[in-house]
Amino acid sequence: MQKLKATLQKIKPVDKTLLTRAQEKLDALTKPKGSLGVLEEIAKQVVGITEKMHPVLKNKFIVTVAADHGVCREGVSAYPQEVTAQMVANFLDGGAAINVLAGHVHAKVVIVDAGIACKMKPRPGLTQKRAGSGTKNIAAGPAMTRDQAVICIENGIELAEALAEQDADIIGTGEMGIGNTTSASAIVSVITGTKPESVTGRGTGITEAMLANKIAVIAKAIAANKPDPADGIDVLAKLGGFEIGTLAGIFLGCAASRIPVVIDGFISGAAALIAGTIKPEAKDYMLAAHCSVERGHKVTLDYMGLKPLLNLDMRLGEGTGAALGINLIEAATKILNEMATFASAGVAREKP
Amino acid sequence: MQKLKATLQKIKPVDKTLLTRAQEKLDALTKPKGSLGVLEEIAKQVVGITEKMHPVLKNKFIVTVAADHGVCREGVSAYPQEVTAQMVANFLDGGAAINVLAGHVHAKVVIVDAGIACKMKPRPGLTQKRAGSGTKNIAAGPAMTRDQAVICIENGIELAEALAEQDADIIGTGEMGIGNTTSASAIVSVITGTKPESVTGRGTGITEAMLANKIAVIAKAIAANKPDPADGIDVLAKLGGFEIGTLAGIFLGCAASRIPVVIDGFISGAAALIAGTIKPEAKDYMLAAHCSVERGHKVTLDYMGLKPLLNLDMRLGEGTGAALGINLIEAATKILNEMATFASAGVAREKP
Repeated sequence: MQKLKATLQKIKPVDKTLLTRAQEKLDALTKPKGSLGVLEEIAKQVVGITEKMHPVLKNKFIVTVAADHGVCREGVSAYPQEVTAQMVANFLDGGAAINVLAGHVHAKVVIVDAGIACKMKPRPGLTQKRAGSGTKNIAAGPAMTRDQAVICIENGIELAEALAEQDADIIGTGEMGIGNTTSASAIVSVITGTKPESVTGRGTGITEAMLANKIAVIAKAIAANKPDPADGIDVLAKLGGFEIGTLAGIFLGCAASRIPVVIDGFISGAAALIAGTIKPEAKDYMLAAHCSVERGHKVTLDYMGLKPLLNLDMRLGEGTGAALGINLIEAATKILNEMATFASAGVAREKP
Repeated sequence: MQKLKATLQKIKPVDKTLLTRAQEKLDALTKPKGSLGVLEEIAKQVVGITEKMHPVLKNKFIVTVAADHGVCREGVSAYPQEVTAQMVANFLDGGAAINVLAGHVHAKVVIVDAGIACKMKPRPGLTQKRAGSGTKNIAAGPAMTRDQAVICIENGIELAEALAEQDADIIGTGEMGIGNTTSASAIVSVITGTKPESVTGRGTGITEAMLANKIAVIAKAIAANKPDPADGIDVLAKLGGFEIGTLAGIFLGCAASRIPVVIDGFISGAAALIAGTIKPEAKDYMLAAHCSVERGHKVTLDYMGLKPLLNLDMRLGEGTGAALGINLIEAATKILNEMATFASAGVAREKP
């Protein structure tokens, strides 16, 4: 709890005057004012986060956190639970979508076991930050104890701190966990005050009947646990999961270390929502990579006032959206750093 | 005219059975079916275009074509005409947004003078494909002769052919030309049958009064010239401009050589529309990078049935949107080429 408290104290809102200074720099570049749209907004936000007028995003990471969910036994997923560990092995072997897309944008992938049901044998590239062996079934009671929730979050903070020590310029979030859209939907429903049916989607691709069951399971989990929407740790403890708590910690740790942190899809968004509930100022440090097909994701981003960079109907997770988003954020900072000014290039300005 | 005719004969519709085969390949990869959304659609389109089951987009180009517009004298732009040549010099010096973003995605930029008002001195990196010294004022008569229109288009075809000989894997389009949103709005209005006020925007950033004048100028140009909406060459000749005609030729040349070709913003979209009017099958080879702030761009893409990859409120042109789009298209093909299959990775499939 000590690490969490210390981290929260370090998180300050972004200094808005830096954004104005960055816009002045952007307006001097050889392009009509504002003509790069959202790229200019992102460039400003990165200036505000890093407090550098010319931030360089060279050292890029995606942290993909995996864990298992007791709620799986309620038949909420199209895939069996062992796929979580199998996919982690696939990440470590380099064969998954996140490996391909992280490689494409020159980001390193950090794979974390935050509580897979069966502990995996140690392997190079696998970081063990386990808060348990899968969560309990939220339809019957809390996913984890409050102590475990704090451990998850502090594990995430430690991961962010370790990357900060490696001079990370930007960190993307990702996850793997069969059943975790159920957990995420429950979290988003409670914190945003939205009915479960409005924030629940088909996850990896379930049938209509399974979707109806999933919604009922989520309603049951909320009724059984009565989480306090204003207490992010309580929501996490009662609705799970370990990877979501760890990602919430990464969001808080990045905010404390002034590192831009990129939200991936729906699960990552639920983690960002918990982080923002615990410390609203942390939102200043978040960028939303994309809006997924999962309907709860848009609800989450709207609630947090974040505008996604991409709308590509993706719904894979792992950090795949974050990877593509990081590439756009890097492009935005290069605009700020590498373009000529009207004066330096001898280009005439607008007519008076 | 001979080159244009020969090129049009070479353009065949994409074989749809290839898309089905590509989807089968995508469905074998370690991800829920369809979970990469639009990326999967793009990967399939590139397979169809290239007729390769594992297309590699390594050798990337952006062709940025510049020209001047006689309609400038009607007060339709916020910038003086000499900015066209000044920005081309900036492109050649590497200081413009397109240089930064093309560099970011590892695409080479080809700068083409298709008819700048004052011919520039030859410089390394500048390709001269001039069809004239700026177009005539479309508010008073045709922008160019029909012969000039054909020359522009054939120049574009030659540019595409030259890049095909350099083994270009993908080509992005871009442009520079003070006044060219006026020309593009007139073209889009005529071909799509939409009122000028619904396809006319603020270009580089004009005032409300200038916008009203711009719309009036476009209406006058259409009334004065009476272009035939079904004849792409006639629309081009009457409403201009040289860069738009050259880009239309690039779209046709890419389609003939089976090279994926990426639409940038509004001007590039108007050129794609002319190419699609001349040869509808050419549309199969086009990908829309983004939807710009210019309201006519969405009208254009909807009319052509193309879905933009990005919506970042950009309105700069030069090929900046195409550069970002190319990066996503490359990512999509890497998914197809580099991911493990369920079988190879030993990951369980969906429950029956």
